[in-house]
Amino acid sequence: MATLQTLEEALVEELRDLYSAEQQLVEALPKMAKAATNKKLRAGFTEHLKQTEGHVERLEQAFQLLNEKPKAQTCQAMKGLIREGSEIIAEDAVPDVHDAFLIAAAQKVEHYEIASYGTVISWAEVLGLTEVRNLLEQTLEEEKETNEKLTEISDTIVHAPVA
Amino acid sequence: MATLQTLEEALVEELRDLYSAEQQLVEALPKMAKAATNKKLRAGFTEHLKQTEGHVERLEQAFQLLNEKPKAQTCQAMKGLIREGSEIIAEDAVPDVHDAFLIAAAQKVEHYEIASYGTVISWAEVLGLTEVRNLLEQTLEEEKETNEKLTEISDTIVHAPVA
Repeated sequence: MATLQTLEEALVEELRDLYSAEQQLVEALPKMAKAATNKKLRAGFTEHLKQTEGHVERLEQAFQLLNEKPKAQTCQAMKGLIREGSEIIAEDAVPDVHDAFLIAAAQKVEHYEIASYGTVISWAEVLGLTEVRNLLEQTLEEEKETNEKLTEISDTIVHAPVA
Repeated sequence: MATLQTLEEALVEELRDLYSAEQQLVEALPKMAKAATNKKLRAGFTEHLKQTEGHVERLEQAFQLLNEKPKAQTCQAMKGLIREGSEIIAEDAVPDVHDAFLIAAAQKVEHYEIASYGTVISWAEVLGLTEVRNLLEQTLEEEKETNEKLTEISDTIVHAPVA
């Protein structure tokens, strides 16, 4: 591969990583929903699945705006996050504790995405790519909202002692 | 393994994951520092290495307060994040772009830790474990500060076009 010379090339590379990350998440979210006991949590995962499918589409629009074919580049970090999520799904715990773990795993994923979108948004801004920036900003807002909703649900589940 | 029954058991398990994550980071940060071209960035990684060694110690203190032996449980997510970091270190790019990628990778790590410490702090709070909570809060503040410093350094490196 040729030496990456410009920030725009870096942006495309980072978007390919995110495109892989979001696709992995589309696969993982139904398993998280199935593993959740709390109804609000289950509904939250299902709702976020729909949003995540939208995030994949927005990335495709971003590639189009950049005159690039949508191409995923395996996101190793999301692979690790999802592996950790699978371990948690398999964990033997009473329902409330199990749900608390699922929320913890999901919030790690959200924070990963918040960091990634934060990066690509700042790069798009520097490059004056306003349309791309605005697309990604919409997704970032949804990731932040999801993270906040997870905290709210957690507050209703986590209590001491967990019975 | 027995069924996890209580939030305190969940907390111990989550701390073991963090203990592994911080230890992995102690191994990885010198490589990130070595790969950085920008002097401030290099110094930042070196400084954060010292902080991270302190985070390992704080986790050991937390285990002690909980009457648990410090025990790491491989953090798969951090493994993935560090694998992604290694790919970036090996990436062929001009210095500014390479540094921008290193910052992006480091901010993903910081956000992962912000999410994890956020979880254990809220659980410790619910459990009334004030000393444990305060210890972890100190680390969370340092992770947030590191993340902000990385954004500041990024602002001095990232520009368009990257020459």
